[in-house]
Amino acid sequence: MEASQALSRIGLAGLAVMGQNLALNIAEKGFPITVYNRTGSKVDETLVRAHEEGQLPLTGKYTPRDFVLSLQRPRSVIILVKAGAPVDQTIAALADHMEPGDTIIDGGNEWYENTERRMQEAASRGLLYLGMGVSGGEEGARQGPSLMPGGSFQAYNNINDILQKVAAQVEDGPCVTYIGEGGSGNFVKMVHNGIEYGDMQLISEAYDVLKNVGGLTNAELAEIFDEWNKGELESFLIEITADIFKVKDEHGDGELVDKILDKTGMKGTGKWTVQQAAELSVAAPTIAASLDCRYLSGLKEERENAAEVLKEAGLKEEVGSVRSGVDKKRLIDDVRQALYASKICSYAQGMNLLRAKSNEKGWNLNFGELARIWKGGCIIRAVFLDRIKKAYQRNPNLASLVVDPEFAREMVQRQAAWRRVVGLAISAGISTPGMCASLSYFDTYRRARLPANLVQAQRDLFGAHTYERVDRPGSFHTEWTKLARNTNAGVGAFN
Amino acid sequence: MEASQALSRIGLAGLAVMGQNLALNIAEKGFPITVYNRTGSKVDETLVRAHEEGQLPLTGKYTPRDFVLSLQRPRSVIILVKAGAPVDQTIAALADHMEPGDTIIDGGNEWYENTERRMQEAASRGLLYLGMGVSGGEEGARQGPSLMPGGSFQAYNNINDILQKVAAQVEDGPCVTYIGEGGSGNFVKMVHNGIEYGDMQLISEAYDVLKNVGGLTNAELAEIFDEWNKGELESFLIEITADIFKVKDEHGDGELVDKILDKTGMKGTGKWTVQQAAELSVAAPTIAASLDCRYLSGLKEERENAAEVLKEAGLKEEVGSVRSGVDKKRLIDDVRQALYASKICSYAQGMNLLRAKSNEKGWNLNFGELARIWKGGCIIRAVFLDRIKKAYQRNPNLASLVVDPEFAREMVQRQAAWRRVVGLAISAGISTPGMCASLSYFDTYRRARLPANLVQAQRDLFGAHTYERVDRPGSFHTEWTKLARNTNAGVGAFN
Repeated sequence: MEASQALSRIGLAGLAVMGQNLALNIAEKGFPITVYNRTGSKVDETLVRAHEEGQLPLTGKYTPRDFVLSLQRPRSVIILVKAGAPVDQTIAALADHMEPGDTIIDGGNEWYENTERRMQEAASRGLLYLGMGVSGGEEGARQGPSLMPGGSFQAYNNINDILQKVAAQVEDGPCVTYIGEGGSGNFVKMVHNGIEYGDMQLISEAYDVLKNVGGLTNAELAEIFDEWNKGELESFLIEITADIFKVKDEHGDGELVDKILDKTGMKGTGKWTVQQAAELSVAAPTIAASLDCRYLSGLKEERENAAEVLKEAGLKEEVGSVRSGVDKKRLIDDVRQALYASKICSYAQGMNLLRAKSNEKGWNLNFGELARIWKGGCIIRAVFLDRIKKAYQRNPNLASLVVDPEFAREMVQRQAAWRRVVGLAISAGISTPGMCASLSYFDTYRRARLPANLVQAQRDLFGAHTYERVDRPGSFHTEWTKLARNTNAGVGAFN
Repeated sequence: MEASQALSRIGLAGLAVMGQNLALNIAEKGFPITVYNRTGSKVDETLVRAHEEGQLPLTGKYTPRDFVLSLQRPRSVIILVKAGAPVDQTIAALADHMEPGDTIIDGGNEWYENTERRMQEAASRGLLYLGMGVSGGEEGARQGPSLMPGGSFQAYNNINDILQKVAAQVEDGPCVTYIGEGGSGNFVKMVHNGIEYGDMQLISEAYDVLKNVGGLTNAELAEIFDEWNKGELESFLIEITADIFKVKDEHGDGELVDKILDKTGMKGTGKWTVQQAAELSVAAPTIAASLDCRYLSGLKEERENAAEVLKEAGLKEEVGSVRSGVDKKRLIDDVRQALYASKICSYAQGMNLLRAKSNEKGWNLNFGELARIWKGGCIIRAVFLDRIKKAYQRNPNLASLVVDPEFAREMVQRQAAWRRVVGLAISAGISTPGMCASLSYFDTYRRARLPANLVQAQRDLFGAHTYERVDRPGSFHTEWTKLARNTNAGVGAFN
């Protein structure tokens, strides 16, 4: 019935823009592909695009059965639908027509435990499964995304040739690697997104300080970000930020950025990152601060009211007096350094979260490889990631990025500027929650002795939780109140 | 067989110190009680204590059946065992002997969803259920805790007379109220503990700044905290902190607090609080910072290594130079104000988390009442809570404590000192993550316009997530890159 040569190499189900673009990318790389969507018009749309974008080898099917049967065996089917129930529904529709040895690849932003559940269900039918993070947005899907496939290694091998070609290409190879077993691909993508939240927040704080303390115009900001994009901060997000400041408002004077409502949406991966950090006892305060700022941005009316109620704070005048004393050139240079140092701390948090999960799940993640595949295609792509790659190549067991010799040197070089920017923002009443969180993280992590001894004494006093000592082994409990009140007279007074 | 007058009014199962103390407290208030523990020696221990502490009306039983049958109907049994599986096991052992209309009261730090599951299981047997937060530690259990019972209102009414007497007594009544339905009692206790984490962290930062920037001795710190405990900061945690600084080290010179290892333990409620805040889109950065600091405190060896690697940071010298310029008296007063302002923000976060959950679950929590029952008995008990009670009485729909007219006035009065302390700590390389988080929170919340417009523009650029405008309704999408690169020449350059 079906001639072998007519069968497609791979299938893709779910033809929203991301799905269409990824399918066209695959076809363009020379891999015949069949596409399917529950709503047939999306199939037609994709067929038209495949024709228009270069007569690409793309076939459309309108039923799950026809779709599955049009694929070479062992079959590989990529699903790109909304995370959650739609994935289960799509799998249910397709799996009946698939055979042992075939593979399902979920390319959505799925919660990793859902992937692990589906992986087991698939295994009970003899099907292989991959949860594959895909980063780069619509543009990346079409031109070359960063791909984070995790799950069945055999399934990965079945499509490795395709992934190598479809992924973004950078000087040290395609932006794809086998991440690890289970839901590791989804988990790594989740942390990538958490880091992305952090980067965006830190950039918005740099903007805020330059605009509201430095008094820079949008034209100046565009120029600065273009300049920054030629140095250590070179990255997609810095580049697009420069572009954003250049766009004029078609409805009025000035630039469009000033007309955008300051309420930020979100989709869930940042929240999961923060919750997982708490679950795994990993401090990730910069990422958490970026999530909090999205939440607080949503409270527009409450903020307007608070600004009114607290107007006696007289902060307008404070900003004014701080601003008048500012050396603009130096501020710009300080903010660049503060942004870079804050970013290193944020990446350190994300990497340490990945390490904690890798240890818990036995995923054996390769952090240098993760940094490498983020160098192209994805939203956080940056020159800086090559240096993270090298740090982990130098020492795969690196406790934290900030103690890698190169990054440590950079932190030391930048800390004076970093402290100046955060201090200035605090005086001016401009919040820089992400930069503050990074700096607090740095200052806490690099201290041999923290005031946690007091907290532990408090816990022992009211809960008999015991404490350890710095000078001898063992676990101790003290009757603090009794001793304090007996010896009160014996302790010198302060006057 | 059993004469009615021989039956106890209530039972308590689980005789670790907390359980023993709560049972003795109940008996002392004149309510005959039967106690039970799986290990019989604990029953004996409690009987001896009941005898020694005043011939209290306390009976011991050694089997679940004897225990349950020794109680007046409808029976009420308090369980005080470790949260999780031990609660299920204890319920399984007791419930077989209980009858419809009887009540189980779990007094542990249980995850509220476990309580809601058990509530349903209990209901299927006709049993009533309460999840009751008990705060105050061992001492509070014996002398009068703060009690947070949630679940069956009928069950609450059955033991209300006991709870009113057993709870801590303050000038406006006993520290107990019916919290709400479902797992609300556990949830409120969880947030209480999160707030407690925040308080302890903020106090440890005040200690750190006074000691390491101000150069205060333990004797001076004891005096300062005693002094603070006579003013707006008056609270259990400030009081015990003063005591802690007074205790001499029995193994050597100086005070014991300096010999305690700076690693802080934890039990889970802080983690849950942070995860729930993220889940409910509530910013709770001060509580999160306190959790992060507990995590970072645990990395003692990593911190010692980081201190070594980053020693070129030359922070010792910075602290020295900052310290030399410090006016001690003024620093002490500034730190007091910073601590108070930071604390208000932390309570605002906790209260808003409770409100979000109350709205989600329809618990109809009364925030003024919660502040009232925390005024005595519990770890966060403080004079300050009376002011929170009044703020919510003035306006039950208060959006945030910081916009209550009285607290707003206090924030405005204290903000200069607060900014000085945080700025000084940043210059000195002393981390104050909790105070920083509170200040960032305040500065973010009180701003009518945040730089979130930039984040939203970035999201629209790379993900077509759309944005709103400040000047017209609707949802917009812009082809940023195309427009930016077309109009590049049209935007003025910065030189």
